[in-house]
Amino acid sequence: MTAVGFIGLGIMGGPVAANLVRAGHQVTGYNRSPAKAEALAARGGRAARSIAEAVRGSDVVITMLPDTPDVEQVVLGDGGVFASAAPGTLYIDMSTIRPDAAARIAAAGGQRGVRVLDAPVSGGEQGAIDGTLSIMVGGEPGDFEAARPLLEAAGKTIVHVGPAGSGQTVKAANQLIVAGTIELVAEAIVFLEAHGVDMEAATTVLGGGLAGSTVLQRKGAAMLRRDFTPGFRAELHHKDLGIVTSAARDAGVVIPAGALVAQLMASLLAQGDGGLDHGALLKLVAQMSGRDRA
Amino acid sequence: MTAVGFIGLGIMGGPVAANLVRAGHQVTGYNRSPAKAEALAARGGRAARSIAEAVRGSDVVITMLPDTPDVEQVVLGDGGVFASAAPGTLYIDMSTIRPDAAARIAAAGGQRGVRVLDAPVSGGEQGAIDGTLSIMVGGEPGDFEAARPLLEAAGKTIVHVGPAGSGQTVKAANQLIVAGTIELVAEAIVFLEAHGVDMEAATTVLGGGLAGSTVLQRKGAAMLRRDFTPGFRAELHHKDLGIVTSAARDAGVVIPAGALVAQLMASLLAQGDGGLDHGALLKLVAQMSGRDRA
Amino acid sequence: MTAVGFIGLGIMGGPVAANLVRAGHQVTGYNRSPAKAEALAARGGRAARSIAEAVRGSDVVITMLPDTPDVEQVVLGDGGVFASAAPGTLYIDMSTIRPDAAARIAAAGGQRGVRVLDAPVSGGEQGAIDGTLSIMVGGEPGDFEAARPLLEAAGKTIVHVGPAGSGQTVKAANQLIVAGTIELVAEAIVFLEAHGVDMEAATTVLGGGLAGSTVLQRKGAAMLRRDFTPGFRAELHHKDLGIVTSAARDAGVVIPAGALVAQLMASLLAQGDGGLDHGALLKLVAQMSGRDRA
Amino acid sequence: MTAVGFIGLGIMGGPVAANLVRAGHQVTGYNRSPAKAEALAARGGRAARSIAEAVRGSDVVITMLPDTPDVEQVVLGDGGVFASAAPGTLYIDMSTIRPDAAARIAAAGGQRGVRVLDAPVSGGEQGAIDGTLSIMVGGEPGDFEAARPLLEAAGKTIVHVGPAGSGQTVKAANQLIVAGTIELVAEAIVFLEAHGVDMEAATTVLGGGLAGSTVLQRKGAAMLRRDFTPGFRAELHHKDLGIVTSAARDAGVVIPAGALVAQLMASLLAQGDGGLDHGALLKLVAQMSGRDRA
Repeated sequence: MTAVGFIGLGIMGGPVAANLVRAGHQVTGYNRSPAKAEALAARGGRAARSIAEAVRGSDVVITMLPDTPDVEQVVLGDGGVFASAAPGTLYIDMSTIRPDAAARIAAAGGQRGVRVLDAPVSGGEQGAIDGTLSIMVGGEPGDFEAARPLLEAAGKTIVHVGPAGSGQTVKAANQLIVAGTIELVAEAIVFLEAHGVDMEAATTVLGGGLAGSTVLQRKGAAMLRRDFTPGFRAELHHKDLGIVTSAARDAGVVIPAGALVAQLMASLLAQGDGGLDHGALLKLVAQMSGRDRA
Repeated sequence: MTAVGFIGLGIMGGPVAANLVRAGHQVTGYNRSPAKAEALAARGGRAARSIAEAVRGSDVVITMLPDTPDVEQVVLGDGGVFASAAPGTLYIDMSTIRPDAAARIAAAGGQRGVRVLDAPVSGGEQGAIDGTLSIMVGGEPGDFEAARPLLEAAGKTIVHVGPAGSGQTVKAANQLIVAGTIELVAEAIVFLEAHGVDMEAATTVLGGGLAGSTVLQRKGAAMLRRDFTPGFRAELHHKDLGIVTSAARDAGVVIPAGALVAQLMASLLAQGDGGLDHGALLKLVAQMSGRDRA
Repeated sequence: MTAVGFIGLGIMGGPVAANLVRAGHQVTGYNRSPAKAEALAARGGRAARSIAEAVRGSDVVITMLPDTPDVEQVVLGDGGVFASAAPGTLYIDMSTIRPDAAARIAAAGGQRGVRVLDAPVSGGEQGAIDGTLSIMVGGEPGDFEAARPLLEAAGKTIVHVGPAGSGQTVKAANQLIVAGTIELVAEAIVFLEAHGVDMEAATTVLGGGLAGSTVLQRKGAAMLRRDFTPGFRAELHHKDLGIVTSAARDAGVVIPAGALVAQLMASLLAQGDGGLDHGALLKLVAQMSGRDRA
Repeated sequence: MTAVGFIGLGIMGGPVAANLVRAGHQVTGYNRSPAKAEALAARGGRAARSIAEAVRGSDVVITMLPDTPDVEQVVLGDGGVFASAAPGTLYIDMSTIRPDAAARIAAAGGQRGVRVLDAPVSGGEQGAIDGTLSIMVGGEPGDFEAARPLLEAAGKTIVHVGPAGSGQTVKAANQLIVAGTIELVAEAIVFLEAHGVDMEAATTVLGGGLAGSTVLQRKGAAMLRRDFTPGFRAELHHKDLGIVTSAARDAGVVIPAGALVAQLMASLLAQGDGGLDHGALLKLVAQMSGRDRA
């Protein structure tokens, strides 16, 4: 049993914290809107009324927050995690943020004797609920080993991918591939529909060969019937594509396909569809092709 | 047992014809360079010295040729398949050609009483040898049912996807997705390498989530070690991307990602790398990113 | 005075033929719909009822037709220009067609003793009416010199750019740059409008520096007020971008910006806006950016 | 005569400051490396040893610095412009920085009684030397009128384009169009060269029609002879394209062509060509097309 302070109990953080409780850990949760912390308390955790309260007395602190500035504020700010954490605390950020920010936070933690891991996840809300997330972890190998038992309550595939920031780098690459694959599947679907092909047969044979992908398998059917219930919202993927294009730029890596898809995802948001599933890239391809008009 | 005339005994056609022989069919092969027909004869088939000789007396005629003009010449030309085929013959084109050409050939066959299927394959040379190809078939349902037992000697997944030309349409969509996925994986790999991430761990975790794809699974390791032994040559994929961009244009379907990847594949050829595996898109991303220089 | 047969009296061909009449030449016009030939006759030309009638007795034959297949049919077909033209005739194609087709037509003409120039134009309907077209000419230098006095009745800038097909190659490059520049101006306008900038002042200062272009100068104001009255219809530019992407592909030249703009122009057509001026690329950028909604 | 503090005496700032001296103003210059301030003193200005010294006693303060963080540091930092400027001072930033940063700086100035204009320029080193820059100014109309006489010593076209930040927005749009036009001209040149066209004739006729641009006119000849002596360095244009893609993203404007060109410019830098003129995009197009190899 580990004493865990958990900050950020939203769509992803809520179920992860609940899984930690279920695995027998003592979890003290904090969320800006207190109702979510109380919901955790109702499931066997504890509710904190401040970040400091969640951090004090915890061996491990976890954050799971929307974006880079949120994490920076919660961790580095006045009354934040680092201000309250005892030396030796293990701090794990499971948010998806900029790799360079993750590396800076790790360095800042190191100066205070806090051990820091970046551990973003993939697998979506369902994966968080089921405890089957993939977790990509950057940081010191020893800290990773220390965190592993805890992370096993949240995910199925838990991999150490390199030094501080590396987890975020791999997550960024993940989001590049996922968005791009959705776009490719969308272009293929509109192309096939325009030619009057039997879509069920076509997607079966595509999925069975080199064109097969988890995107096609998990999202193809919903895309075919224009069901864009999220899942993973386009506006979140837009945020993540901002991270990957920016990190690629900083590293001098040229990603023409990634940059194009980032523009298309931005178009979804600009047209008011940011709340739809990222599979709605299909909607944009259909619009540009003059199809699917009401 | 069916009497089959088989025209085009190259890298793909040779092993498919051999599998038909192995399955007990009487296969008469023709190839422009006679050595390949003799190789088929040595395996239990027969060697024809002309298209007409391969076609006459065959219940089924199969072609497996490089490109649209080859098929048009062999099928519609003087001394071609349609000139020699008896009414009622079943003609199956297993080449990858333009969907509109496939539809025209089917119409021309219909006027002569020849039943026509377009049945392009995916799975590459290895799939042809192993008899595990995916085969996407366009044409009349009854003709598809008649062809199925024969095709089962060549492939594992055999699917009827719609009317004449549909097989080629699905193959075109397949090639769009495959090339695009290779590009995405290439961009992700160069991005991750530039950040000093543990590549084996990273590709494992990517493959286990929504970023997973058959491309990553089958080609990722070779791409990581810059092994571009074909496999499927970039120059053939370039031909296929010409088909898909052209067919999309004709159908009024907008494929921005597909069109971009077609340009990148064209760059591989222009730089003299058309003979490499299509995974060499990684080489281009690395070049553009100033990496992998000797 | 030269005896000219003029085939194709549409939006562009009509005014060019009229300018030749005005310059004192004897022009016999043919058009599929006879009313246009009669209109030419009313202006002092003659009306022919067949291609053969327009060609016979003419020293120079000019065609100005919509697309490559039209020219091939009119020139190479039964009863076409080459079937009727006397050896020594100078044949000038002022249509915009594929460079490779232009080169083939020149070779076919050479075999019959017909001298062939490709001489596509830029400058639009207004330039055709005013006789101020730019004319880019491919073919033998001697034939160009022979044609020049005649072409001077139609255009202001008349340049010999190389051997047969070269005129079409330069026209293709022209259309690549023009479409791309319209797209850039469109992106800049939507960007500036979104930021609440004074658009008149902004376009003035843009036009005065390195961002200045004839597109901005001639089309900027109409684009700003969403006036997409053609001018040059998007559907014609779409045809031309098909030529340039195809010719680039054949030549092994990589044109990523050109290929992207070709997709965007295709989207205009797919959405039913092919009849608008090509400046309507602005409409697409605004749509993708969630702006200009009714 | 106005008392001007001028901070940043580099390739652009040096000649602008010298022109202000020449116009009769009393200019006190500061540069991190003091030699440049002494050079200004030798031309009739004064050399300051600190920002504070340059600012104190000046009616107008001008900065002309490389990038956003430099300006933020110099203006907002300890011992910076705002710390030393008397209320009522007019502060003009002639750097090219992020529009949102410019707006923030203007707001910060307002709180201290400093009037702030953003006034980025185009026209390059030569324009700075000749005093013929285009200057796009954002801020209060009254402040613009007050600054105009001074700016007239530095530029020829001086335009007020909107509220604070607008100058930077217009400059960003300018850089989008310029980079994109260079890319289009580069693609056209490689396309034409590959077809063996007479390049001088071709660029003449292109320049005379709707494809004409200041880029083609000023840079075409140098690009044709592969002279990439800067002019304006690719690495600076890369910085500016970072600004425009980021500002477009923030404003919800989709710029597919701009984003593509930003990737291509990034490739120039990644390949070590950031010190060349931005016209070196031609080098990249030629490389991707397998041409211009040594």
